[in-house]
Amino acid sequence: MTDIDAVLARADLNLPTSLATLFDLVRIKSISTDAAYRPDCRKAAEFLANYLNQMGFDASVRDTAGNPVVVAHHDGGSPACPHVLFYGHYDVQPVDPLDLWTNDPFDPAIRDGDNGEKIISGRGTADDKGQLLTFVEAIRAFKDVRGALPVRLTILFEGEEESGSPSLKPFIEANAQELKADFAMVCDTAMWDRETPAICASLRGLVGEEITVTAADRDLHSGGYGGVAANPIHVLAAILAGLHDDTGAVTLPGFYDGVDEAPDEIKAVWRGLEQASPGFLSEIGLSIPSGEKGRSILELLWARPTAEVNGIAGGYAGDGFKTVIASKATAKVSFRLVGHQDPHKIRDAFRAYVRSRLPADCRVEFASHGASSAIQLPYDSALLDQAKRALSKEWPKPTIVIGGGGSIPVVGDFSSTLGMDTLLVGFGLSDDRGHSPNEKYNLRSFQKGIRSWVRILDEVQSSI
Amino acid sequence: MTDIDAVLARADLNLPTSLATLFDLVRIKSISTDAAYRPDCRKAAEFLANYLNQMGFDASVRDTAGNPVVVAHHDGGSPACPHVLFYGHYDVQPVDPLDLWTNDPFDPAIRDGDNGEKIISGRGTADDKGQLLTFVEAIRAFKDVRGALPVRLTILFEGEEESGSPSLKPFIEANAQELKADFAMVCDTAMWDRETPAICASLRGLVGEEITVTAADRDLHSGGYGGVAANPIHVLAAILAGLHDDTGAVTLPGFYDGVDEAPDEIKAVWRGLEQASPGFLSEIGLSIPSGEKGRSILELLWARPTAEVNGIAGGYAGDGFKTVIASKATAKVSFRLVGHQDPHKIRDAFRAYVRSRLPADCRVEFASHGASSAIQLPYDSALLDQAKRALSKEWPKPTIVIGGGGSIPVVGDFSSTLGMDTLLVGFGLSDDRGHSPNEKYNLRSFQKGIRSWVRILDEVQSSI
Repeated sequence: MTDIDAVLARADLNLPTSLATLFDLVRIKSISTDAAYRPDCRKAAEFLANYLNQMGFDASVRDTAGNPVVVAHHDGGSPACPHVLFYGHYDVQPVDPLDLWTNDPFDPAIRDGDNGEKIISGRGTADDKGQLLTFVEAIRAFKDVRGALPVRLTILFEGEEESGSPSLKPFIEANAQELKADFAMVCDTAMWDRETPAICASLRGLVGEEITVTAADRDLHSGGYGGVAANPIHVLAAILAGLHDDTGAVTLPGFYDGVDEAPDEIKAVWRGLEQASPGFLSEIGLSIPSGEKGRSILELLWARPTAEVNGIAGGYAGDGFKTVIASKATAKVSFRLVGHQDPHKIRDAFRAYVRSRLPADCRVEFASHGASSAIQLPYDSALLDQAKRALSKEWPKPTIVIGGGGSIPVVGDFSSTLGMDTLLVGFGLSDDRGHSPNEKYNLRSFQKGIRSWVRILDEVQSSI
Repeated sequence: MTDIDAVLARADLNLPTSLATLFDLVRIKSISTDAAYRPDCRKAAEFLANYLNQMGFDASVRDTAGNPVVVAHHDGGSPACPHVLFYGHYDVQPVDPLDLWTNDPFDPAIRDGDNGEKIISGRGTADDKGQLLTFVEAIRAFKDVRGALPVRLTILFEGEEESGSPSLKPFIEANAQELKADFAMVCDTAMWDRETPAICASLRGLVGEEITVTAADRDLHSGGYGGVAANPIHVLAAILAGLHDDTGAVTLPGFYDGVDEAPDEIKAVWRGLEQASPGFLSEIGLSIPSGEKGRSILELLWARPTAEVNGIAGGYAGDGFKTVIASKATAKVSFRLVGHQDPHKIRDAFRAYVRSRLPADCRVEFASHGASSAIQLPYDSALLDQAKRALSKEWPKPTIVIGGGGSIPVVGDFSSTLGMDTLLVGFGLSDDRGHSPNEKYNLRSFQKGIRSWVRILDEVQSSI
């Protein structure tokens, strides 16, 4: 039995106490979107800090303007060890409608799942309490067997992820020196399927903009003014329609600056995945990819930027009809970013474009709704290679490298504020119902997740 | 003193009793938009029928699905007389907010107006009770002096004009034989200014359409689907933006079929009116006419068709931001029609255009919100010429021929169902506040309005 086998065996041996810890954590109703649960959020933070202190960490609960953050430090076995920042969140989604839950969301248990699998039921089991504990329990197994950690480690747990993490960026900026590491690890993503581990090497960034076009200073009767007075809905429709060209590409000047092509071999894997499970669009009642022509669906989602109108309103939209020319029309527009696209340049380019399309007697107001960069773990990075190898040893099928269509703003902050790459590995499954009633985490995800982190950390340590 | 002078003198002599009749009519709270006033509406109809019967008409109150209609017939002085259908409406707008009224809206009185003019205060004095009585009182003066009418006359008063006249079209269709005349006269419009009488020779028709574009069968997260799933707001924006070309013209194939150019001399008058009072757009905070290039504002309003989006909605439009790709987006679109444009062909052309722009995996639903033709009294018609001449004798400045940007659906029905042209003459002023608190009708409008109809009817009779 090699050394790593001892750690894996210990992790398996620890499983009952690992589960007990998870159950204790799930019982704490740390719902961050509802102020009534602020004391519960603090309780979850204190629970985690205590647990880490018992493991020999120097852990503390740190106040923010919102829910507290847990920061914990531990030295590795040798000063030459890489320094890792591990991030997770202890807050959970609300549980309503409660009557759709088969079991009490805050009374976790191991139950029989739909597929004959053992599942751990309860709010937060998958998102993110169960997932963050896979990492912590891997560390515990190392500690138990070796008395030392395979890496120098800083742990950062926040309690506002489900509320948009308003306090986290200021905290990271104020404590950059303390939090800076060689790279970050996050466990908040999913497997490709039950047999295939996945590393999410990219997450799209996001720029949100709200624009309000004002024409006349009041609503007008379309009989008295139609054909003469500027109609802000027409102006807005022309602006929005002009955001894409006939090939599906976004027209803003400089929009594709910093967008790198994914490597051909990665694109080939994605094309293969898509052919193996072709139901992506038909599941939602569609059949034709709407974006840039000539690219696979997975490439469009994971490696290409977008412009999307998320909402529009203007004039009369109630029952019946009103022959009105509105004074104002408004739209919410978001841009998903990839690679090195600069969110601030994108915002500026969008605003300049809108102004260039505005009639001289109309006005436009802008409101910002966030700006986060994309993150990209380089496809040729050693870290990605190590993690791929480690996961392929633990799971039946080889690891695949995927991307995420959405953003995890904190990972963008790790890149922009702390200058770190992030490894995103997770063991969620598509039927975990993370934000819905009857959230669960497979027992297998939890156990093999812990083992996966043992293997990844061992690969990282061995690379010194 | 010629014969017509005797009738005019009699009309002046009758003024006190004409006012008494108007006051009695205004005191009846015939608000058609509020079902609580249905008995009042019937009372107004009965009042008018009684009044006309006393004048020797064969008048009756006729039931409809809504408020009743008054129909009255009277022979002219000779069988050779032209047959006229006169239309007015006895219903009025609601009076709220009541606290903005200086006087009780249903207690009419002659008061001093803002400009030192005598005004008749009260709801409906201008729209349309005072105006319809100018015609009736002109008839009474003829009757008093000559014992006969200058025309064969059918009168039609409805009680749902302020509610969209839902019962009128069925009534006209069911009684077409009875209502058919050589032409119609309506008194529900305004003067150009205090000195300048105006004949409204055209009214734009209206086609209302509601379209709902559906893409995916549910709302989607823009992170998970952005750039791949069709966005119905994009589809809708492109459809709406494509309705106009760069010159401001509407792009629907065949849209301008049946649109005649107004005569150059009419256009020159309109250009002159516009130069004399250039504040039309600046009053509403705008400065650039938005419609077809190279045409005056008044021409755009009175003689050119339009496509206007009256409302749009889709996705998330509340506070903050939601990264959603909506399943549906909807818009209300209306077309103002002129000349002989066919509303049904326009509707069909619009629907065909929308379908042609729809991605193959999206769906569209349409809902109709009315279809009325434009009306146009030919600029070279004898009736228009007679009325111009008559009005120019009564008022300080010569008559001008204008158009109406909005529609009066009944006038479209007179054209399409009864095959009649309509003469639209009225004595309202721009400060009458027809749909607002403190509605009034100038005493001068009432008196000279009666005299104007005497002159018009005399011209019409003399043309035999």
